[in-house]
Amino acid sequence: MSRALGPTERTRLRRKPVRGSHDAAVVHAILDEALICHVGIAGRPGDAGGAPIVIPTTHVRLDDRLYVHGSAASHLLGALAAGVEACVTVTLLDGLVLARTAMHHSVNYRSVVLFGRGVPIDDDDEKRRALAALLDKMVAGRSRACRAPDERELIATKVIGFAITEASAKIRTGPPLAEDGADALLPYWSGVVPVRTAWGTPEPSPDCTVVVPDELRLAAAPAVR
Amino acid sequence: MSRALGPTERTRLRRKPVRGSHDAAVVHAILDEALICHVGIAGRPGDAGGAPIVIPTTHVRLDDRLYVHGSAASHLLGALAAGVEACVTVTLLDGLVLARTAMHHSVNYRSVVLFGRGVPIDDDDEKRRALAALLDKMVAGRSRACRAPDERELIATKVIGFAITEASAKIRTGPPLAEDGADALLPYWSGVVPVRTAWGTPEPSPDCTVVVPDELRLAAAPAVR
Repeated sequence: MSRALGPTERTRLRRKPVRGSHDAAVVHAILDEALICHVGIAGRPGDAGGAPIVIPTTHVRLDDRLYVHGSAASHLLGALAAGVEACVTVTLLDGLVLARTAMHHSVNYRSVVLFGRGVPIDDDDEKRRALAALLDKMVAGRSRACRAPDERELIATKVIGFAITEASAKIRTGPPLAEDGADALLPYWSGVVPVRTAWGTPEPSPDCTVVVPDELRLAAAPAVR
Repeated sequence: MSRALGPTERTRLRRKPVRGSHDAAVVHAILDEALICHVGIAGRPGDAGGAPIVIPTTHVRLDDRLYVHGSAASHLLGALAAGVEACVTVTLLDGLVLARTAMHHSVNYRSVVLFGRGVPIDDDDEKRRALAALLDKMVAGRSRACRAPDERELIATKVIGFAITEASAKIRTGPPLAEDGADALLPYWSGVVPVRTAWGTPEPSPDCTVVVPDELRLAAAPAVR
């Protein structure tokens, strides 16, 4: 059991707490596996009374910080840099849970909900580390297999960091809830269909003359997570 | 070209509008393919000034309405039923875009951002249609291969509908942006690694005595979308 993150009033799990965790290691592992997160912020005051906006983006974790990045011209990045309250949610879909009754259908998943205000990362070293980690999360070692950002590119890119302090994980695994009585005798298949993320065969750019690296070619397997 | 959804002030695409669409058919196709959406609402007033909360859930579209469902006891469902402003975002990750320069790395994706206030579906027929469609989206025909909800189960389940009127799609496809000058000569592989969602081999429940249906067994292929 590693360090606990809270819970605070808003990360306390109200529904099905048995599926929840505030364990930092559990939260970190889910953040690390997902390539995409969804960032929610309140809308601009003019936007129908500040209705929420949810935008997908890539993310990476280094130690106790979660980083997102984008163009310095992006509205989302600008709002995050200004320190608005945000919610970053990450979801991994692991399986379809099929039961004998409609009611007991579900999905297996692992998700993290993180609350906080972002801070713009102005330190060039930390910024470079975060950007390199974003690439290495796409493909291991990729940050050393391309040209690093130059000064101009670094300025054009905004990196926002979130402290991972107020976060919770929620996980569902395993078969459908056992059904009883007449439901248990229904003649329907019951179980889980695993869902995975798989890589396909790499497609070189039209002007690419370099052979496909082994780590990409070999990863194009039936189901690589 | 089908009907256009807006744009309204908040769905007008400010960044890279060339990647965007307000075409209803494009929006619908993305909503239909994704199994999971992320719903953002403003937090309770006590929660650090109403900070946003983003929660993953399953969804289904029927005609011009998007439906989500959940327990009548869920906080999210309660807030949606009360008609709070919401943002529903759906993202399909299609590929890793690897360039010769760190800066030109990206991902291929299709996303939809939908704004609106939900309405609780109290009509039993519409509620049953939405719940059946949620199952049939997991596995074609599943709503007829299980016991339908009874009266008690229907009451315990809340279904929320969103009019799909204020929505936009954003899509990135294809190879990395062409690099020029010295960058074009860098000795790094450049191209796209496709990412797909794949089904694994079905895992029957411990008490299941029915053979795996063909549609599940045969779908456990290398990469089924």
